[in-house]
Amino acid sequence: MSENGRSISRRSDVAPFLAMEVLIEAARLEDQGRQIIHMEVGQPGVQAPEAARNAAKHALDTKLIGYTETAGVIPLRERLSRYYLDTYGLEVDKDRFVVTTGSSAAFNLAFLAAFDPGDRIVLTSPGYPAYRGIIKALGLVPVEIEVGPETRWSLTPDLIAEAQREGPVKGVLVASPANPTGTMMTPQALAELVSYCDDEDIWFISDEIYHGLIYEGRQETALATSDKVIVINSFSKYFCMTGWRIGWMILPECLLKPIHRIAQSLYISPPELSQIAATAVLDCGDELEEVKAGYARNRALLLEGLPKLGFDRLLPVDGAFYIYADTRDFSSDSLQFTREMLHGAGVAATPGADFDLVHGGNFMRLSFAGAHDDMKQALVNLSDWLGNR
Amino acid sequence: MSENGRSISRRSDVAPFLAMEVLIEAARLEDQGRQIIHMEVGQPGVQAPEAARNAAKHALDTKLIGYTETAGVIPLRERLSRYYLDTYGLEVDKDRFVVTTGSSAAFNLAFLAAFDPGDRIVLTSPGYPAYRGIIKALGLVPVEIEVGPETRWSLTPDLIAEAQREGPVKGVLVASPANPTGTMMTPQALAELVSYCDDEDIWFISDEIYHGLIYEGRQETALATSDKVIVINSFSKYFCMTGWRIGWMILPECLLKPIHRIAQSLYISPPELSQIAATAVLDCGDELEEVKAGYARNRALLLEGLPKLGFDRLLPVDGAFYIYADTRDFSSDSLQFTREMLHGAGVAATPGADFDLVHGGNFMRLSFAGAHDDMKQALVNLSDWLGNR
Repeated sequence: MSENGRSISRRSDVAPFLAMEVLIEAARLEDQGRQIIHMEVGQPGVQAPEAARNAAKHALDTKLIGYTETAGVIPLRERLSRYYLDTYGLEVDKDRFVVTTGSSAAFNLAFLAAFDPGDRIVLTSPGYPAYRGIIKALGLVPVEIEVGPETRWSLTPDLIAEAQREGPVKGVLVASPANPTGTMMTPQALAELVSYCDDEDIWFISDEIYHGLIYEGRQETALATSDKVIVINSFSKYFCMTGWRIGWMILPECLLKPIHRIAQSLYISPPELSQIAATAVLDCGDELEEVKAGYARNRALLLEGLPKLGFDRLLPVDGAFYIYADTRDFSSDSLQFTREMLHGAGVAATPGADFDLVHGGNFMRLSFAGAHDDMKQALVNLSDWLGNR
Repeated sequence: MSENGRSISRRSDVAPFLAMEVLIEAARLEDQGRQIIHMEVGQPGVQAPEAARNAAKHALDTKLIGYTETAGVIPLRERLSRYYLDTYGLEVDKDRFVVTTGSSAAFNLAFLAAFDPGDRIVLTSPGYPAYRGIIKALGLVPVEIEVGPETRWSLTPDLIAEAQREGPVKGVLVASPANPTGTMMTPQALAELVSYCDDEDIWFISDEIYHGLIYEGRQETALATSDKVIVINSFSKYFCMTGWRIGWMILPECLLKPIHRIAQSLYISPPELSQIAATAVLDCGDELEEVKAGYARNRALLLEGLPKLGFDRLLPVDGAFYIYADTRDFSSDSLQFTREMLHGAGVAATPGADFDLVHGGNFMRLSFAGAHDDMKQALVNLSDWLGNR
C-alpha cells in the first residue's frame, strides 16, 4: 500500500469511525451557534465522582506522578479484588488483575498475547467497531457473525460451531451488555457459551465494560463459569472516567507473564493519576448508583417517546446506555438519515454502519447517557423535524 | 507456544526488562528498612512543574474529563507547533502533530502504520529495550547494529548500507541523545543519516525524547533535514511527566490518516488530564531549566567521582541523564555486579543486558536524574563498598 510514493502498511487500512465524522460536523454546527444534543457519544454526561477527583488532586499536591508497576499499583489491584467479591461473590487474587490504559489497551494486550497473525477471532455484527480495527491492525482475521432477534443479538455455541466448520476459531469475543445493541445475555446463555469455548480450547474474551449499567435481567461475569476466560472491563462507563483512560483485565495464570512482558514494552505503565482516582472511585457506589438512576429515567423516557415518533422497532435495552433503533421507516440509508437529523433536529446520533458493515444502513445508535432535559428536548426536536419532513 | 495447555502467541515471547527485577529487589530491601539510592529508573526525581499540576487541578474542578480528538486537543497541538518554532526555528502545522499516550504509543502507532510483518527495522545496540519488545510483538524483525566508539555509538549511512546488503531495510530508528549511552549525534551526522534514508526510501524514526537535556554539543531535530521523517517525543523526560503517559509525534502528511485510523481503534484518545497539564507545561521553561541545571550538577559530580572509584571507562554524556559505565574492571558479569552493588552499597543501577544482548554484560547504566545529595551519597556508599569488596 502506498500513499504519495512512500509505503504505508497494509494493516493500517482499518476503517475510520463514522461517529468521528458526526462529532466533527456537530462541532462545526456548534461553532455556528447551533444547539446540538449529543446522543452520539458513548460516554457519561457527568464527571467522575468527587472523591475520585479529590484523590487525584491530593496526589498532585503530595507525590511524584511517575511510572508504576506495569500491572498497576497494588492498592488498586487489591481494591479490585474486593470489588469482585462484593459484586460477583468471587475471590480473585490481586495478581490476576492487570490494570490497563482503558479497555483499549486490554484488548490490544489480550489479542497480542493470545493470538498470532492469521488467527480467526469470532465477534458479533453489529458490534463495537474498535474490535475490528484492533484485530485488523494486528494481522488477525475477524469472523463477524450476524446476530439478530432469533438469538437475542447474541452468539450461541451453534453459531461458533458453524464458524469452526469454515476454519479453526482461536478466539471468541463477547460484550454483554453489548454495544450498540444494549442487549445482555442471560447468565445461563453466557455460561453455556463459555463452557463451549473451554471445551473447544478457544480463548473466550469477555468485554464487561457495561457491567453495572443493567436495567433488565441479572449481570454475570464470565469468570463465574471459568478461570480460563479473559475478562476486560474499564472505569469509563459505570464509573464515569472515559477521559482518564483506565481499565483492567483479569487473566488466567498462563497469560499473566506474557502480558506483563508485552505491556512493559508497549505501555510501560497505565497513567498513575488515573490509577489513584480509580482506586477511590470504587468506594463511590452511592454516587454512581444515582448516575445510573438518571440513565434509567432517560431510558424510560425514550422507550416511551421514540415509538410515538415512529421509531417503533427498538432493540431491547437490557443494559449500557444505548438504544439501537431501526430507521427503515424513515430512510433506506441511516448514514444519510443521521446527517439530516443532525442538521434538521440538532440531534447527533451514530449511524449503524460503524457497528455493522452489512445491515448498519438500517440502524442508528442513540446514547442516553446525557442530561434528562437534553433527552426531553431531543424528543421535542425530533417530533418537530419529523413533522415537517 | 503453549503454557499450561492453552496456546500463547509466539510474538508474546518478548524479553522482560531486567530493570524491573532490580526495582522489585530494591523495593524488597526498602521494605526491610534499607536505604536505597535509585539510579536505575529513567525518570526525573521531581514532580511536574506547579503550573502543569495546577492546570490539571483546575480542570478537575471545572470540566468533564472525557474522550478527546484522537490526535489530541487543538490547544496542545497549537502550543506544540509554537514550541517547534521557538526551539528549532521550524514551522510545523498543528495538524502534523499527533498527541500520544506517551512515546510508547507513538512507537506502536508508527510501527503499525509504516511496516508490515516481516519488515526489517534497523536500530542500535545498545539501545532502549522497549524498541525491541514492540518490534517483536508486532511481527517485525529488529536488525540490531552494534555501535561503539569508532562511530561515537551512532549509526552511519555505511552501517545502514551494510544491513541492506543482507536484506531490504524498511525503517531506521535512531535516538539522539541515546538511552542508555547518553551520546548524541552532531547535527551534521544526523542530517547525513536522514538524507541517506530519504534517498533509499527508508522510514526514518527519530526518537527525540531526551531533547532539552543536552550538556555538550547542539541538539537538532531530524525534521530540520526532511519532512518525511517520523519524529517521536514525550513529556516524560525534560518535562518531568513520566506517570502522566503523554507524548507526541510529528508525521509526514501521508501517514496522518493511517495513524489517526489506527489510533482511534487502539487508543481512542490520550488521557485528557495529561493533555491539559502538558499544554501548561510548555510554558514552564524557567522551572524546567532549573531542573536541568540540577542534572548538570549531578553529571559533573559523577563524572569527577566515578573515575576516582575505578569506573574510568565512561561513555561521553552529551545528553539525557544516564552514564553508561564499563564494569569489566570489577566483574565479568554486570548483572551479577549490579545485584551485589544493590545489596552491598544500596545503589540500584540497570545492568547493561537490558540494552545490549551481546555486550551488555560489560556495562551498567546509572541514572543521575535523582537528588544531588543522593548522588553524593551514592559515591560515598560505592567507595565504602568497593573498598571492602
